Amino acid sequence: MVEYDETRELSDYRFDHNNILGIEQLSARDIQHILDTARSFREISSRPIKKVPTLRGKTVVNLFFEPSTRTRTSFEIAAKRMSADTFNISASTSSTIKGETLIDTARNIQAMAPDILIVRHSCSGVPHLLSRHVEACIVNAGDGSHEHPSQALLDMYTVRERKGAIAGLRVAIIGDISHSRVALSNFLGFIKMGAEVRVAGPGTFLPVGLEQLGVKVCRSVVDAVDGADVVLTLRIQRERENDSLIPSLREYSQYYGISRKVLTYAKPDALVMHPGPVNRGVELEPEVADGEQSVILDQVSNGVAVRMALLYLVLGGDKESPERREKA
Amino acid sequence: MVEYDETRELSDYRFDHNNILGIEQLSARDIQHILDTARSFREISSRPIKKVPTLRGKTVVNLFFEPSTRTRTSFEIAAKRMSADTFNISASTSSTIKGETLIDTARNIQAMAPDILIVRHSCSGVPHLLSRHVEACIVNAGDGSHEHPSQALLDMYTVRERKGAIAGLRVAIIGDISHSRVALSNFLGFIKMGAEVRVAGPGTFLPVGLEQLGVKVCRSVVDAVDGADVVLTLRIQRERENDSLIPSLREYSQYYGISRKVLTYAKPDALVMHPGPVNRGVELEPEVADGEQSVILDQVSNGVAVRMALLYLVLGGDKESPERREKA
Amino acid sequence: MVEYDETRELSDYRFDHNNILGIEQLSARDIQHILDTARSFREISSRPIKKVPTLRGKTVVNLFFEPSTRTRTSFEIAAKRMSADTFNISASTSSTIKGETLIDTARNIQAMAPDILIVRHSCSGVPHLLSRHVEACIVNAGDGSHEHPSQALLDMYTVRERKGAIAGLRVAIIGDISHSRVALSNFLGFIKMGAEVRVAGPGTFLPVGLEQLGVKVCRSVVDAVDGADVVLTLRIQRERENDSLIPSLREYSQYYGISRKVLTYAKPDALVMHPGPVNRGVELEPEVADGEQSVILDQVSNGVAVRMALLYLVLGGDKESPERREKA
Repeated sequence: MVEYDETRELSDYRFDHNNILGIEQLSARDIQHILDTARSFREISSRPIKKVPTLRGKTVVNLFFEPSTRTRTSFEIAAKRMSADTFNISASTSSTIKGETLIDTARNIQAMAPDILIVRHSCSGVPHLLSRHVEACIVNAGDGSHEHPSQALLDMYTVRERKGAIAGLRVAIIGDISHSRVALSNFLGFIKMGAEVRVAGPGTFLPVGLEQLGVKVCRSVVDAVDGADVVLTLRIQRERENDSLIPSLREYSQYYGISRKVLTYAKPDALVMHPGPVNRGVELEPEVADGEQSVILDQVSNGVAVRMALLYLVLGGDKESPERREKA
Repeated sequence: MVEYDETRELSDYRFDHNNILGIEQLSARDIQHILDTARSFREISSRPIKKVPTLRGKTVVNLFFEPSTRTRTSFEIAAKRMSADTFNISASTSSTIKGETLIDTARNIQAMAPDILIVRHSCSGVPHLLSRHVEACIVNAGDGSHEHPSQALLDMYTVRERKGAIAGLRVAIIGDISHSRVALSNFLGFIKMGAEVRVAGPGTFLPVGLEQLGVKVCRSVVDAVDGADVVLTLRIQRERENDSLIPSLREYSQYYGISRKVLTYAKPDALVMHPGPVNRGVELEPEVADGEQSVILDQVSNGVAVRMALLYLVLGGDKESPERREKA
Repeated sequence: MVEYDETRELSDYRFDHNNILGIEQLSARDIQHILDTARSFREISSRPIKKVPTLRGKTVVNLFFEPSTRTRTSFEIAAKRMSADTFNISASTSSTIKGETLIDTARNIQAMAPDILIVRHSCSGVPHLLSRHVEACIVNAGDGSHEHPSQALLDMYTVRERKGAIAGLRVAIIGDISHSRVALSNFLGFIKMGAEVRVAGPGTFLPVGLEQLGVKVCRSVVDAVDGADVVLTLRIQRERENDSLIPSLREYSQYYGISRKVLTYAKPDALVMHPGPVNRGVELEPEVADGEQSVILDQVSNGVAVRMALLYLVLGGDKESPERREKA
């Protein structure tokens, strides 16, 4: 399954995406380049003066049709640390409530000459649709239960940082696979980077066709976690309890929550990950969420660096001036 | 009706408004000066680095008592591209819900030394009232069904850019005249600049007294559009359908919507305009909204430049340093 | 009661707080140092270019679990005038609605490397709790009915500016003492600075134990105001009228509102203060709110300077570079 040799020379490579719609559109080489670029931006957030002029005078619009503090703030921090001007437009206040079509909304925003639109929408495919109607670069910040590429990239960044490389690792992804855009983006990403991906979850949360993606579906959480280098748990939407997809949170936790005991089946240095926010005692036993193997807060920190890299790369940062990245 | 010769020498002229309350307060010469200033700012939004230091260290507060994404974002982009610091205060979170009077709210904001308050309110006259109680410059971003001067200025900018001059043009304004602040500001503006203004709309949407403003009321949309250089349609509030002012959106569209057929009555190069957001199929047939004559998205783009000009001029940009505008 | 001689030499003093949790944690010397620092920042807001580079590249997050325009905007203006990057996170959109614990929310924000979290919460002690779990400096912007230190500091700033010194003054605080974080912070502050504090209010608004704080409880508003240098009124939550703590706003106003007549019992040059927003005709007769003795709007102006000082000092502004403050 390894598409790409991570140690290969990159000299003749050019990142050539003006949009980040999903992991689907990225090659393993693209992913590696994004992670490398993120690494070069990582230390900016630990400087006393956390600001570089890289995107000065650029207009970055957070266009969120679904509420999100976490992802929006991460993008906003990434943008401002690169000196971009940021604007938040949320659905509840936008013109869509006045009957305007989605495309008209986007074209109207385009008319004000933004450089990047960061788009979240409850419907799959919205960022892809908008990318065909606006000149600005589109970064998908989550579309329906489809993709959430920046989340998968920060997950891969975190794994690569801790494990040195992704190829050859065994990654267990546990929980609500069906409704999770994090799951699909991570399947695509980890498999492209040469990892083995196993999943486990309640039957009502497992879509058909996972095997075609190269994912191994396991009958129990122990089977999935067995020998894993990474245990990535997905968030349970608490409201699912009421829609009969799971009998109860307590039962979910008993069968699919990661306890200290379940974790012993993974490799001793396996990483415990979660996209947040964690339902403590549901997806993860508190001792696991806060334990030494947990890299949940690293994921959040790395998210800022990965998003800085995405904003930089879609604007053609590399191309415009090769020494620019050094200066940052 | 021409108040002003657009080709006249402007050397002895000074823009002398610290507030933009309405088109009513502006002379034709003021309007021309605003449009000229906007033209000089227009290209900033097409630069790779869309930022000039003109308003650095200025505090611009969006004080919106009515929700608005479109206008607020346009002002916010205009302000940030000139390096001002911007602050958004919306009614739903402001102290007015705690029982504070409007004037107290404004005086409290004034105490924090803002330079400009951009005010939108559902009541006519609020910006005028506040301008008598605060030192900051007030820019009216829409007061009730009274005025919306920045919209009319961007409309005039768009027409002048396309037609070279406004004087002598025939402008048809179609739709809900009674409830539209866009309509009143445009009547005042276009007539001051020497255009002929004709209107058409359902009887329930036509206030009495339009003739005194110099507006010609037509019996049908064809009469209004006949020979027009500009066809400016107004937005129908969809909720009007339920309050019996119009029988139905379908019927409105049939009688007052601009179809390709209706448009043939206008001059062949007539501009189609709309303040947005468009109800497709209601005010405009989609083919007209997206057609070659449509300048709807130009209006949005020009809006940023016009608002940059307003922010610059109310702060006395011209006066403080004559070469400052050149540098921008 | 005087803890501290305000005229004493400060050369060997160092401000040593990374958090501003309450007045409780500050010494009289700390308070004086904050007020002195605020004074040095005061004039920035009256410059034509209201911006200094002091906090460039610093990340300031407004983390508000309770709505507040006034305090949030004041902090945001303070931060931006010092060139910090600001981010607004409000409870209604934050992950707490998704079931995340408060500490997890804070640790997640911490992972994005903010420098300062400005926290408001309806529960007492939340800023204190968070300060033990995050590295960022915490500034309490109001916790339940406990403390609101920046408000008390701006009140003390305003009094010191007008009266020269605080020690020896008589301060009357009138109204809803029980539910007011402004009251407690002011009790602690004014008493530490050597003032005498007297209170009056309806019995249902007077907690037990005030005497232990050094506060004198008076039987009537006239007793409290008698000979006062400062008359500080507290805001009545209008919804209290319905929860039977006060019979009616009209009756409250009659017994505890400050009228011109009541004010004659205070010293002729007594200051009239209110944290805002004022219920005109309830806590203050309009003629008193707008009268010559009222310093209500000064409080708001001074609030920006005091908050600039707090942001500067918690980040160790003094320590990092002694000449930095001069440059500002």
